[in-house]
Amino acid sequence: MLRIKQIATRSGGFLPKYISTAGSPRPLSANVASLRGFQTTATKMSVTSQYYPNEPTKPVVKTDTIPGPASQKELAELGKVFDSRPAYFVADYEKSLGNYIADVDGNVYLDLYAQIASIALGYNNPALIKASQTPEMTRALVDRPALANFPSKDLTKSLNQILKFAPKGQDHVWPGLSGADANELAFKAAFMYHQAQARGYDTEFSTEEQESVMDNQAPGSPPLSVLSFRKAFHGRLFASGSTTNSKPIHKLDFPAFDWPHAEYPHYKFPLEKNEAANRAEDDRCLKQVEELITTWKYPVAALIIEPIQSEGGDNHASKYFLQGLRDITLKHKVVYIIDEVQTGVGATGKFWCHEYADIQPPVDLVTFSKKFQSAGYFFHDPKFIPNKPYRQFNTWCGEPARLLIAGAIGQEIVDKNLLGQVQRVGKYLFGKLEQLQSQHPEKLQNLRGKDRGTFIAWDLPTPQERDLLLKKLKSNGCNVGGCSTHAVRLRPSLTFEEKHVDIFIEALAKSIKEL
Amino acid sequence: MLRIKQIATRSGGFLPKYISTAGSPRPLSANVASLRGFQTTATKMSVTSQYYPNEPTKPVVKTDTIPGPASQKELAELGKVFDSRPAYFVADYEKSLGNYIADVDGNVYLDLYAQIASIALGYNNPALIKASQTPEMTRALVDRPALANFPSKDLTKSLNQILKFAPKGQDHVWPGLSGADANELAFKAAFMYHQAQARGYDTEFSTEEQESVMDNQAPGSPPLSVLSFRKAFHGRLFASGSTTNSKPIHKLDFPAFDWPHAEYPHYKFPLEKNEAANRAEDDRCLKQVEELITTWKYPVAALIIEPIQSEGGDNHASKYFLQGLRDITLKHKVVYIIDEVQTGVGATGKFWCHEYADIQPPVDLVTFSKKFQSAGYFFHDPKFIPNKPYRQFNTWCGEPARLLIAGAIGQEIVDKNLLGQVQRVGKYLFGKLEQLQSQHPEKLQNLRGKDRGTFIAWDLPTPQERDLLLKKLKSNGCNVGGCSTHAVRLRPSLTFEEKHVDIFIEALAKSIKEL
Repeated sequence: MLRIKQIATRSGGFLPKYISTAGSPRPLSANVASLRGFQTTATKMSVTSQYYPNEPTKPVVKTDTIPGPASQKELAELGKVFDSRPAYFVADYEKSLGNYIADVDGNVYLDLYAQIASIALGYNNPALIKASQTPEMTRALVDRPALANFPSKDLTKSLNQILKFAPKGQDHVWPGLSGADANELAFKAAFMYHQAQARGYDTEFSTEEQESVMDNQAPGSPPLSVLSFRKAFHGRLFASGSTTNSKPIHKLDFPAFDWPHAEYPHYKFPLEKNEAANRAEDDRCLKQVEELITTWKYPVAALIIEPIQSEGGDNHASKYFLQGLRDITLKHKVVYIIDEVQTGVGATGKFWCHEYADIQPPVDLVTFSKKFQSAGYFFHDPKFIPNKPYRQFNTWCGEPARLLIAGAIGQEIVDKNLLGQVQRVGKYLFGKLEQLQSQHPEKLQNLRGKDRGTFIAWDLPTPQERDLLLKKLKSNGCNVGGCSTHAVRLRPSLTFEEKHVDIFIEALAKSIKEL
Repeated sequence: MLRIKQIATRSGGFLPKYISTAGSPRPLSANVASLRGFQTTATKMSVTSQYYPNEPTKPVVKTDTIPGPASQKELAELGKVFDSRPAYFVADYEKSLGNYIADVDGNVYLDLYAQIASIALGYNNPALIKASQTPEMTRALVDRPALANFPSKDLTKSLNQILKFAPKGQDHVWPGLSGADANELAFKAAFMYHQAQARGYDTEFSTEEQESVMDNQAPGSPPLSVLSFRKAFHGRLFASGSTTNSKPIHKLDFPAFDWPHAEYPHYKFPLEKNEAANRAEDDRCLKQVEELITTWKYPVAALIIEPIQSEGGDNHASKYFLQGLRDITLKHKVVYIIDEVQTGVGATGKFWCHEYADIQPPVDLVTFSKKFQSAGYFFHDPKFIPNKPYRQFNTWCGEPARLLIAGAIGQEIVDKNLLGQVQRVGKYLFGKLEQLQSQHPEKLQNLRGKDRGTFIAWDLPTPQERDLLLKKLKSNGCNVGGCSTHAVRLRPSLTFEEKHVDIFIEALAKSIKEL
């Protein structure tokens, strides 16, 4: 039997450790109690306090520059073997805890970026530490199977655990390794489905198909396309990169497929005061989507969209628009893929952001990664399983260690009602930002993400001011990311609470004044 | 302090466990002693015996069919959520140990396939279990960083540990997530390098490039190509898939880049009796490579080759051929990529197979995955780091948990002199196969892999006989894989020893007689 005890390590870290309780009748620590019968009502101890009784109470910034001297020294070493130029600082994850990330200079930041929106439950979460120290995890790490050839006896359980949290209507899952990989696996499923509709699901491949494919030529390698949107981000491999449209630097010098991009609706905010204009914008963009599908030089087999374009600037799509795409994709037999890589797993206040749109019938494929740590796509129609084995296949077919982590994350979100917390904290955060906006309307333009949990963004007047604000925020103890050219995006973990909001708002107000 | 004790679990498994030695003066087990001061001379206890004192002494096959009834039942459940058709059986990794893989029916097979050549050190290797249970591993699992934005203080050490085992001349590494991912990351590096040679490394992108790339058009998205070989396997994503040329089923219905394939030399075996013919074959293929590079409709930015084509049939390339490619790629400024995904990490008797060719000057990029568990590419020229950050970038930039495992695998290979063992056991295995070949020349055609460790293959007269032989081998307790249409490929872990060879040869002789 294992017990958790959160102890300060010799080097000053907060890493919780598991210790054997064999022959040890000591009472459970607060953290263990939290795992047994977690208190979820607002009047009791908060979720974060139960996870992280030793969480720092505020940021600490000790160095004049960020990265500080110790980070700079370490980055110079790292730069000898790796491209360390994008690094903000060198993190000390042993000393990071909950909503706070520490660096090797002793700075401790309130983290509203959370590894580009990938940390679901804060740093060194005790439930995840527990999940990382099971015999199943050891096997997954040291005996990594070729999952589709020699599936482990643990696999069905792992996949069913993930499917407990699948979007409504989705009851199959195909595992991958990253968001880009998940999207490309979904494209493959869509291309096979598209061709099966034309050829017949059980029809054998023709000799011409089997020969031409070995020269990368049609009809075996048909010139099908995937429609995506301007400013989309779906990854940086070659097919996913062809659907990505966020910034030139992500794409320059790479060959690309000649695939179309439709305009993503560009709304006026606040939404409630601009309904007519935004509806007209939806209709304009829907019309363009249908035109591209019917006129593009190559057949459009699939459409992929983020319910909120994240890297591209936190651009929101309305329920009306997302349903409109369902109608068009059904009409033209286009596979509808929702990319929930950044929006999924709770940060918008629902497990999956597109659940807000209640699209009917459900979309065909939903991709995930980031906060689920594992990656892949969900689907419901068994015909997305290709007619023959080994068509959707690779050696590893996913990462069993990360599947275990994903299952634990989902379970915590449900057991601790973290969606309810994110909705509550999101409202509080948005309200505070509206107050600040009324004082500094120029520095908080197009505030967006109301009723979307903590998935909130706004624009600065210029890219330079945005970059400066992010820098000032770091100096004032808050690690925050940007998106697009002008926007600030907030992506805290689901353990972000009102007390963290207050600290952030104070730092933001100070940073704005320093601009 | 941790000690290893290899214990039978309640359910009959062999999983070694770590137990605290605090206050426990019991003597170290054989396994721990092995980690401290491993015995490497042949007269002492063998490496495998030291790793796995409780390894089964022979296979056990209890069921009339494979998969057996328990596997079939489990696969039916798995099939409800996943494509379980490629599964041979459901494995029980808790009960698998060393060179033996167990299934849920209680069958225990000597494993010469090792998860499609991915298990380096046998199942439940104590050194890897140790590596999987460190505080660094816990952090990697629960606090997965965006490695290039917020590198951990552990990263430089992790990467340097891997670079200890890099091919000669390579001193940088870029991490990825799978073999296909590693190859596509290498393609991206090659495309940027190619364009930098034309444009100038520090030259800014033109407005036309920055605009056209957002429409997936030239010049921003230039129609560059990668030359690969007939029967190559480099992965199943869209760009790697365009270089893959093993079987139609891997590629059908997917759009592909219009990239060229040259013929891979097709040798006569045994090599030592066919030198003149094989040299002529090398020259014929080299000529074709140069012709394709100079005449292909799109510029050839990179060439990628496996030193032994594995999925494509265990086709070997000579030192002369691999050096010839270096000469051609230098002459035409083509980036030379060696794909060591299947051949790398020791199974050929060298850490990297292409070291046998001693290519001068060293190739530009070397990709790895499988037996290293982690993936990525090595390189040496700093100009393969693009001129600006965020060009070679993604959220995770690798998997820190797997980087730790890779480092431990490499260290074990060196510390236990496993390359020496693989060379020794490979010679023994090849000799035994030659003996069997003299009795059954029809069933062991084109025996190949002499002096390439245990990386050995041969052909059957027909695909049907090959498939039947693999089936018979399973019934006789040996898990063995095929490649191409006619070939049997042996891919045991590096812990395969003479005693395992004897068991395998006996099962093979029996299986051949049963054909």
